[in-house]
Amino acid sequence: MFIGEVIGTVVTTRKTDNMQSLPLRLVRRLTTDNIPTAVYVVAVDVIGADEGERVLIASGSSARQTDLTDARPVDAIIMAIVDHWQVDNQTVYSKFAFQPDEISG
Amino acid sequence: MFIGEVIGTVVTTRKTDNMQSLPLRLVRRLTTDNIPTAVYVVAVDVIGADEGERVLIASGSSARQTDLTDARPVDAIIMAIVDHWQVDNQTVYSKFAFQPDEISG
Amino acid sequence: MFIGEVIGTVVTTRKTDNMQSLPLRLVRRLTTDNIPTAVYVVAVDVIGADEGERVLIASGSSARQTDLTDARPVDAIIMAIVDHWQVDNQTVYSKFAFQPDEISG
Amino acid sequence: MFIGEVIGTVVTTRKTDNMQSLPLRLVRRLTTDNIPTAVYVVAVDVIGADEGERVLIASGSSARQTDLTDARPVDAIIMAIVDHWQVDNQTVYSKFAFQPDEISG
Amino acid sequence: MFIGEVIGTVVTTRKTDNMQSLPLRLVRRLTTDNIPTAVYVVAVDVIGADEGERVLIASGSSARQTDLTDARPVDAIIMAIVDHWQVDNQTVYSKFAFQPDEISG
Repeated sequence: MFIGEVIGTVVTTRKTDNMQSLPLRLVRRLTTDNIPTAVYVVAVDVIGADEGERVLIASGSSARQTDLTDARPVDAIIMAIVDHWQVDNQTVYSKFAFQPDEISG
Repeated sequence: MFIGEVIGTVVTTRKTDNMQSLPLRLVRRLTTDNIPTAVYVVAVDVIGADEGERVLIASGSSARQTDLTDARPVDAIIMAIVDHWQVDNQTVYSKFAFQPDEISG
Repeated sequence: MFIGEVIGTVVTTRKTDNMQSLPLRLVRRLTTDNIPTAVYVVAVDVIGADEGERVLIASGSSARQTDLTDARPVDAIIMAIVDHWQVDNQTVYSKFAFQPDEISG
Repeated sequence: MFIGEVIGTVVTTRKTDNMQSLPLRLVRRLTTDNIPTAVYVVAVDVIGADEGERVLIASGSSARQTDLTDARPVDAIIMAIVDHWQVDNQTVYSKFAFQPDEISG
Repeated sequence: MFIGEVIGTVVTTRKTDNMQSLPLRLVRRLTTDNIPTAVYVVAVDVIGADEGERVLIASGSSARQTDLTDARPVDAIIMAIVDHWQVDNQTVYSKFAFQPDEISG
């Protein structure tokens, strides 16, 4: 998995029958220091994440291991909402606390 | 999935038996700001997208989760046609409205 | 899938039992403008492509969706031979016609 | 697989039902010379690795081939803890011995 | 698949139960001109390759299509030992003959 930030939403019209009504979110990949990158993915949101939240993205066939996405043409899902993470025993990001924007990597 | 633009068509002669009559489209990857990249994929079009339309590409085994592509050697499909998408609550692209060609990323 | 050019052949001695007698070709990835790249793959040729031909490569588990490669440790196959392709309604490559070597991308 | 170093932990709140109680570790990819890179993955730790340990990461559907991760939306696991490795018959890293920080590649 | 050179061995202590006793080799990716790159993989050696030998690496779920690796968390195997390969009808590498170190790509 990788850590991403929910930055937007994609709305589709015509789609494969078995994809009706699945919410699609734009997720930007973050570094372990919580710095945005240019890498993004369009993921099915199976848990209801809000804009700006840090999430974990599962990719490939693993994205189909949920009731919502089973047997559907989905290659990425938001599988968890991140509360906080630590690198070298320092908190890089915490949802409910001070969040340093940059930490020297 | 990622957002792409349909830029062309690939016609094949000899192919594996179970690939007969599947439409193959050239799709160029776009950034979240709707800017073209050099990355492309040849995808099976299971929904009928037109040249220039923005679409979502599903890759890997997920590309076989449709009636048309089930059990076929297909690793990418057009699984949806994009109507519009938003980043940071701003509309980056809308199929039926003003489309900024470039947005500072 | 991606568009590649068959540039060579790989001959192996010892290999896994279920890989005996599968033809292995070296395939160089091409851009949508038919320009060679440094990216290559060793693919099982399930349809009989000749040196210099443009082909489509299917990767991952999709490469096992043929009678020849079913249940074998194969992650790439030549799944079709390209006759021609178009970008923005211009023919970039055609097997039996004039082939521009470079088109400004 | 690739060689990584366990550098941190990710704690999630809301997650897919079948992901409850799986430990998530931040793992930084290393070169064969034991030099850190910017590439990282969030992996499920199925064997109990400590911070700073060198581990092997298995990715994709292979990450589901354990009792803990079977049928779960997991695309990366720590599948082994590295004791030592050699390149060109020289020990690059050994868990219980002198560890050169840099070896010219 | 891609062409690699066996450059070393990885020894693990604790690992998932179903990974006991599988030989793990360090394999460096080569270009089609037999030039080493910085890309590497840790692969399960299912056929017994020696240091310095050129091998073919199969990745992803395809790596589990052997008796040794079936249903195990393995995402890369050495699936064949290369005898020789040709590019544009020139022999780039041959196990038992003169081997040019560099060929202008």
